[in-house]
Amino acid sequence: MPSRLTPHHDGSPLYVSTQAPELGEVVRVRLRVPGDFGPLAWVGTRSNPNREPRFDEASVIAAADGWQWWEASVEVENPVHGYRWLLVGVDGRQHWLNQLGLFTTEVRDHDDFRLVAHEPAPAWAASSILYQVFPDRFARSAAAGSRPAPEWAIPAEWSDPLDPVPPARSTQFFGGDLDGVREHLDHLESFGVNLLYLTPMFPARSNHRYDASTFDVVDPLLGGDEALVRLVEAAHARGIRVIGDLTSNHSGDAHEWFRTAQADPDSVERGFYYFRDEAQGGGYESWLGVPSLPKFDWSSAELRRRFIEGRDSVVARFLAPPFNLDGWRIDVANMTGRLGAEDLNAEVRQTIRRTMLDVNPDTILLGESTNDAASDVQGDAWHGAMTYTPFTRPLWSWLLEPGSPAGGGIGFPLAAVPSYDGHEFLETHLRFAAGFPWRTRLATMNALDTHDTPRFGTHARPGTLPVALGLAVTLPGIPVVWAGDEFGLTGVDGEASRTPIPWGSETASEVAPVLDTYRELLGLRRAHPVLATGGLRWLAVGDDAIAFVRESADEQLLVFAARAAATLELPAAAIAMTDAAARLTGDAELEASGDLLRLSSGAPAFAVWRLAGVAAPAWSGPAPA
Amino acid sequence: MPSRLTPHHDGSPLYVSTQAPELGEVVRVRLRVPGDFGPLAWVGTRSNPNREPRFDEASVIAAADGWQWWEASVEVENPVHGYRWLLVGVDGRQHWLNQLGLFTTEVRDHDDFRLVAHEPAPAWAASSILYQVFPDRFARSAAAGSRPAPEWAIPAEWSDPLDPVPPARSTQFFGGDLDGVREHLDHLESFGVNLLYLTPMFPARSNHRYDASTFDVVDPLLGGDEALVRLVEAAHARGIRVIGDLTSNHSGDAHEWFRTAQADPDSVERGFYYFRDEAQGGGYESWLGVPSLPKFDWSSAELRRRFIEGRDSVVARFLAPPFNLDGWRIDVANMTGRLGAEDLNAEVRQTIRRTMLDVNPDTILLGESTNDAASDVQGDAWHGAMTYTPFTRPLWSWLLEPGSPAGGGIGFPLAAVPSYDGHEFLETHLRFAAGFPWRTRLATMNALDTHDTPRFGTHARPGTLPVALGLAVTLPGIPVVWAGDEFGLTGVDGEASRTPIPWGSETASEVAPVLDTYRELLGLRRAHPVLATGGLRWLAVGDDAIAFVRESADEQLLVFAARAAATLELPAAAIAMTDAAARLTGDAELEASGDLLRLSSGAPAFAVWRLAGVAAPAWSGPAPA
Repeated sequence: MPSRLTPHHDGSPLYVSTQAPELGEVVRVRLRVPGDFGPLAWVGTRSNPNREPRFDEASVIAAADGWQWWEASVEVENPVHGYRWLLVGVDGRQHWLNQLGLFTTEVRDHDDFRLVAHEPAPAWAASSILYQVFPDRFARSAAAGSRPAPEWAIPAEWSDPLDPVPPARSTQFFGGDLDGVREHLDHLESFGVNLLYLTPMFPARSNHRYDASTFDVVDPLLGGDEALVRLVEAAHARGIRVIGDLTSNHSGDAHEWFRTAQADPDSVERGFYYFRDEAQGGGYESWLGVPSLPKFDWSSAELRRRFIEGRDSVVARFLAPPFNLDGWRIDVANMTGRLGAEDLNAEVRQTIRRTMLDVNPDTILLGESTNDAASDVQGDAWHGAMTYTPFTRPLWSWLLEPGSPAGGGIGFPLAAVPSYDGHEFLETHLRFAAGFPWRTRLATMNALDTHDTPRFGTHARPGTLPVALGLAVTLPGIPVVWAGDEFGLTGVDGEASRTPIPWGSETASEVAPVLDTYRELLGLRRAHPVLATGGLRWLAVGDDAIAFVRESADEQLLVFAARAAATLELPAAAIAMTDAAARLTGDAELEASGDLLRLSSGAPAFAVWRLAGVAAPAWSGPAPA
Repeated sequence: MPSRLTPHHDGSPLYVSTQAPELGEVVRVRLRVPGDFGPLAWVGTRSNPNREPRFDEASVIAAADGWQWWEASVEVENPVHGYRWLLVGVDGRQHWLNQLGLFTTEVRDHDDFRLVAHEPAPAWAASSILYQVFPDRFARSAAAGSRPAPEWAIPAEWSDPLDPVPPARSTQFFGGDLDGVREHLDHLESFGVNLLYLTPMFPARSNHRYDASTFDVVDPLLGGDEALVRLVEAAHARGIRVIGDLTSNHSGDAHEWFRTAQADPDSVERGFYYFRDEAQGGGYESWLGVPSLPKFDWSSAELRRRFIEGRDSVVARFLAPPFNLDGWRIDVANMTGRLGAEDLNAEVRQTIRRTMLDVNPDTILLGESTNDAASDVQGDAWHGAMTYTPFTRPLWSWLLEPGSPAGGGIGFPLAAVPSYDGHEFLETHLRFAAGFPWRTRLATMNALDTHDTPRFGTHARPGTLPVALGLAVTLPGIPVVWAGDEFGLTGVDGEASRTPIPWGSETASEVAPVLDTYRELLGLRRAHPVLATGGLRWLAVGDDAIAFVRESADEQLLVFAARAAATLELPAAAIAMTDAAARLTGDAELEASGDLLRLSSGAPAFAVWRLAGVAAPAWSGPAPA
């Protein structure tokens, strides 16, 4: 990584004149070039409208702090309009700059920067701090105790250990409910959460409820529709939004639609699923072959009408009064509508978003796609991804004890965590992030872990929790807190991480410092909007430490993350350093030494300094010809 | 590049049990691992069916010549089924192998190997040597002289210089015709051509005929339908197939459909084009804004019916008797059906191919997409691409005199050729080729130049023509000869390269050696099927030289290409070296020195040695469990 400075562009407001262009709009884009880069004969953008290259020349509009600022005008010709920068030296040398970095050779299109003319996410999406609740395990209200456990369940006391062996794995029932969540909103508020994500709340036959038996009502075991209305109202009163979780890939085999489909081959519901002929062996398609999760066949217009399309659909109904949910997270979004030679995924996700825009445009839509999500998240529907590739897995590989078992659910091959040094962390992060439009990155979930994965803390190197959480709040994306992480819970796989929350332990000596870390780092995120929407420049990387800056015209936040004792050096001109640099969090050193800045720490550290804003030209000037 | 050996896999028959799998078929895939790679705990493939990862474990099936052979079984779950290899060491270290190479960090999906269950190209596609003819400039038959030039044309004598200034640029008319082509088939046959590609032959108002005025008949100026029938019959009699050129993106503004559309806003033809309302400024969409080339609107079902869909369509008619063309090259395939928010490209290309399969499945379909073509060539329609990214541009950057102007048409930014060393050549080649399924690579055009570009020889480093042509015939892909290259013609841009063929100069001192080079290298390609379908392993690379091997169970061809004096060393175990290694062409040294092989030349060189076939296990063995 840059021991010298390199040209920089990203999708943030420092470099792009609008975050929500219309199709056909002319957008101004800017490039910063370090003064010592060498004389340039031509600078501009290469777009690829309708798949035919177009070059737009840039001109110098300003020079400040050792950087030249170039600007070009780009017409948004397609809804997802890719572009990259070309810099030609007076010596004829060509450099390409795309989301992956700087190249001397021609590059492919998939790492281009992108202007997206689809409807954007609401502005609040990028400023969210998401808290993820698995209702059965979060909290019981007083009413929960009076509800008998359902016939499929194995009732458990709140303090019982998890039983990971089937059938208890999915039927051990702790009885958390939505009023229980409502009664703990003060907890969420206490460390800055402003977005609550509930895993499924429809009736089902499992503790995880991903096997819905109906989408018509909220599970009475959770308190029913009224409890959801109460929860959302109470959350909204505190400035906390709430999103639900829909399974667009499958229902449960106890779902009313599936039961009708099985009972009556002539029913319209028969077409909601993929039933096989007897000649094909009979049966039906299901999620990874699990019979309790029959897969939806989205070629059915009636399924679309009931579930995702129009104001009477499930998607719409819970976003409207009296429920007023603020959006959806879609389960198994990656597999939805895909089977064999059929791929209806784009139609399904776009239909979901159209319905949401119709009933309540101030909502967000997140799609689960835990691997390479890029091709599905170009901006036509999903605002962000629940994915583990750009952040979670590289983070684990850098910060877990070498040789740690991953456990299931997080997608490491063979459930083993490969060890990465800082260079490999950054390489992997960039490789996967480069496939996303900037604004998709801003709404993609930066999770240390989720309800499907082991917990990060289980095998983390000592002292690296602030490093991991610090990166979740300072890299572009929505920081995610999986309920219980703030209590320091551990869990060796996606099942073991669903421990009931140990309410009452907040002041215990092993819990209080963890909660403090969450309060401090999430508070930092809330206090500095630049962490939500500012540009990102990587400054230095070593085996054990990385450094970058998030920046806007208002401020720069310099971030240093070290998993062990480490020193990084960077050119002083990299940032707008002043004597007034204030350390906002963490314990590390920032020293100027001639033309260099030195960042160092004698132990694992996560530190952030606040610097002056970037001396960027205002957008009010005239666009270049 | 490998100073040590690395694991290898590609799509060739050494490594994949079938080149044309069906959807649902279980395909066996193999990996070679060098003996010194280190002990392995797990080896297998990672597929991504319906976008959810699946791992299939491999087992060792053989060891030979210092390599371990691993085999896994992969079910083809989607029509384009990506997979890559994972190797986990006993030390926990993970390596991923995809089409781009070997990585220690997680990789994205777009460089995966691919099994393609769509209908494959005919077997002869990969064995083709394509000769490209621009009919106005190739040869006049006796009849040509008796035809008056059309009213739009500026008649020229065969020996006149090209006039590149409009309007002569597109109207200077030399009067070549199809009987002229037929009369020179012996020329094509003399150096091994077995596929003739004719740029458009429909009536038009330009010398290039990309502005068709009808698709109903062959231009009478070319001899009409009968001349085409005569040409194809004569070519077939010599074992030469013939393909035509269709403009699916646009017609000419003199096209009968367009004239009807302009004259009658209520006509069905009106819907064939994008006419703008007066409020939008009137007029119509055209190719890059050139009014004589109005763009087709493929949402018109009647346009599809007339042009591309069904047995009465233009696409079908010329593949059937009496014409019997062997396929189509589609002009501006990349932009076809794409405009603003509309993208009908996949529908159009798939419809074209369905029609071809219906009327004559033994045909090929090549799509022009001169930049990053990967997303369009995954195997659902185009068998190969006419593209300049994996081969032509990197080749020019490596082999042209530094600082050479490119001239227009070949897609270099600012018409300047950036200079690459051998590492950059290989990096760029691999980057673009990695996006293609193996079998698409085999049918993609390896052109030094075309009718749209300057000619390679214009600014090539002295002595590098055999290097360039040698790579065109030894790298995967269809070697392309743009008529006139074999006469050593030059041309500074896509217009100047359309010089009439200087018949009669074949024995001139400056022409004969060039023709000899073509005979020798195309003959090499014809004589060794491994160059059409064999595997490809890169062995060594330096600034001035590269080396690789094409291989099958029958033979290995070791290729050394040097743009200047150079030496490369590689591990002796890289190839099946024997004392009997026979140099088939070129002037370079191959020496064994202990554990190394040394390839060297004191000047630009292209040399090929024939070695024993790869000691690979036969496919007849049982598949691993």
